Amino acid sequence: MDFDPTTHSHRRLNPLTGEHILVSPHRTKRPWLGQVEPPQSPSLPRYDPQCYLCPGNARSGGQKNAAYDSTFVFENDFAAVLPPPGPAAPPAPHPLLTTEPVQGGCDVLCFHPRHDLTLARLALPDIEKVIAEWVNVYRRRGAQEHVKYVQIFENKGAIMGCSNPHPHGQVWSLSTVPSIPAAELTNLRQYSLSTTAASSAPTGPKGRPCLLCEYVHYELTVPESEGRIVVKNEHWVALVPWWATWPFEIMLLPHHRHVPSLAHLAPAEKASFADALSRVTKRYDNLFSCSFAYSMGMHQRPTPPGAAQTADETAADEENIAHLHLHFAPPLLRSASVRKFLVGFELMAEAQRDLTPEQAAARLRGCSEVHYLDAIG
Amino acid sequence: MDFDPTTHSHRRLNPLTGEHILVSPHRTKRPWLGQVEPPQSPSLPRYDPQCYLCPGNARSGGQKNAAYDSTFVFENDFAAVLPPPGPAAPPAPHPLLTTEPVQGGCDVLCFHPRHDLTLARLALPDIEKVIAEWVNVYRRRGAQEHVKYVQIFENKGAIMGCSNPHPHGQVWSLSTVPSIPAAELTNLRQYSLSTTAASSAPTGPKGRPCLLCEYVHYELTVPESEGRIVVKNEHWVALVPWWATWPFEIMLLPHHRHVPSLAHLAPAEKASFADALSRVTKRYDNLFSCSFAYSMGMHQRPTPPGAAQTADETAADEENIAHLHLHFAPPLLRSASVRKFLVGFELMAEAQRDLTPEQAAARLRGCSEVHYLDAIG
Ligand SMILES: O=P(O)(O)O[C@H]1O[C@H](CO)[C@@H](O)[C@H](O)[C@H]1O
Ligand SMILES: O=P(O)(O)O[C@H]1O[C@H](CO)[C@@H](O)[C@H](O)[C@H]1O
Repeated sequence: MDFDPTTHSHRRLNPLTGEHILVSPHRTKRPWLGQVEPPQSPSLPRYDPQCYLCPGNARSGGQKNAAYDSTFVFENDFAAVLPPPGPAAPPAPHPLLTTEPVQGGCDVLCFHPRHDLTLARLALPDIEKVIAEWVNVYRRRGAQEHVKYVQIFENKGAIMGCSNPHPHGQVWSLSTVPSIPAAELTNLRQYSLSTTAASSAPTGPKGRPCLLCEYVHYELTVPESEGRIVVKNEHWVALVPWWATWPFEIMLLPHHRHVPSLAHLAPAEKASFADALSRVTKRYDNLFSCSFAYSMGMHQRPTPPGAAQTADETAADEENIAHLHLHFAPPLLRSASVRKFLVGFELMAEAQRDLTPEQAAARLRGCSEVHYLDAIG
Repeated sequence: MDFDPTTHSHRRLNPLTGEHILVSPHRTKRPWLGQVEPPQSPSLPRYDPQCYLCPGNARSGGQKNAAYDSTFVFENDFAAVLPPPGPAAPPAPHPLLTTEPVQGGCDVLCFHPRHDLTLARLALPDIEKVIAEWVNVYRRRGAQEHVKYVQIFENKGAIMGCSNPHPHGQVWSLSTVPSIPAAELTNLRQYSLSTTAASSAPTGPKGRPCLLCEYVHYELTVPESEGRIVVKNEHWVALVPWWATWPFEIMLLPHHRHVPSLAHLAPAEKASFADALSRVTKRYDNLFSCSFAYSMGMHQRPTPPGAAQTADETAADEENIAHLHLHFAPPLLRSASVRKFLVGFELMAEAQRDLTPEQAAARLRGCSEVHYLDAIG
């Protein structure tokens, strides 16, 4: 009997986190009798007088938004972390009960003044403005002396905990490197030290191999119809990683060279980034003809070059081990109303998925890059 | 300025997984404008002719349930893993793309014939029957030669992906130790080797310290009003761990001695387990006067004593490093309809919570142990 990944249960290793994922492809056949989701986005007005993110409106803290006409950044009124100074750590009552104070700042980034748009429906120049704003925030926050990591992310859709459909993302800048990027950095570092460059893939600092450069380089050699690549342009590739957890998970990253962070992107690479983002989010919306929910998170060098923390060369080399990439974690599985729940076994034992990453990539490759709302209109 | 855990953002370490959790207590003040959940459980009939778990009914595969009158176990019709033999692993096309075949079996365990009950509303003798059935399944599956871990869990409530309200849990038995229990076992082992017993807490194999024995022993010394303990009886304690991620997360475990697994429980400890389970689940339902959703998972020694894998003494000692415990991961945060979303930052960076574990424990301690439906009736 030959091993068939679309029939036989198996585990794949996520080399970025060191965790496994259980793939149970035959389970796609089971009927779904559980919770169904409400429609992803009822039709929205271009401007909502009740929306605390629309231009000129008041927020709950009483502040008033600028009458912005492209992007708009402000400090979160309910920030999860606050700027220094803060009190020192209290003594631990027991070695197992330690407390580490965390400081920093939380920003909200409105992508566009229009309440009814999303990245999937923005024009390329507007997406380029969002990217420029990400670069700004990363540079500005990353330059603050107490900041050790700038985490850029977007929650999109009510089922992903987004409390306002106005197109926006968040940036949490912290005095610690959070667990997940810290684990990724450890694994990237270990790979660069323990492996010798075996391929003609681009390399990281000091000519040492980069896990993500190597991985993407391999994916680009796989014949499209068998592979995991969904979108590719001159500088960026979007793929369903070998180790994807979420049904239609995507990783988006530069493939042509080792790029540690947003601050390292050349103008042409930013334009190419906007193109890739637009094409990925359009395909997502077209998959089930809905405004596709997801959480997106960006992992990169903890802070930009020139930040206080990386003034010396060795520290900079260390930090340049990072390879900029975006993760998209979308929950929908079968339709606009049936999601994958990562619960029970997944929460308590190990990530689990039904359709294979290759099947998911093929489905996404089959989607148009013309947004379904524009195709109808 | 003194450090105040209910005001200042901080991180706590989960010593079982090695991951951190960001606590941002001042964030409880933010208004919630996002998704609200439908009622947790509309009133249900005692018997539902459409339910594939009710006694005597047909399941989707065509099989018929026994006319059971206490508990009932059957193999999942859509099992995530299948019994051996299976094909060998295919060659990896690249070192980063490895495949590990997984075999095993998936069982469904109906807790009770009545469709409208839950653990919170079962009589103690009925909960003892559920516990007896967990012991049976653990012994039976754990004795299969290919099984390396028996994962017992329950998804309760539609918002936790449970597709049928009939009281039931699942058991996935696998030819690999899944990522999360594997990480816990590694950390338990490391603690036992690197620490010397500092307290009068019970100890693990060879008199070496056990992380969970030590932790619980410490928690029992904290004055109740400041502590994290919710329920305590002769053998078991339920507490909101120092490192809890979910708003009202609970860990339930034996405190009086080191208990590696279900198979090590004496009769009195099982009765005490039933009492603790009943009291925890009643408090949960009473917190927001609803059938409280959660995922529950049990971690313990991978397989029972006497299993093929542990025939020799050293292996058995190794495995006895485990300390039986249950995790409850409930999503509700503020009311029966407002949950905590673990999305964006949490998925991409680090677990984050708003109210402190101590505040959550105090809320749960304030709940009655008489179920709200019985109190009214
Ligand atoms: O097997 P069920 O109850 O239909 O399915 C539920 O539990 C499983 C195990 O936690 C999950 O993989 C599914 O996503 C969830 O919907
Ligand atoms: O800040 P928001 O959008 O109101 O809140 C959302 O994103 C946060 C960051 O991922 C999460 O902690 C919240 O649970 C979620 O509802």
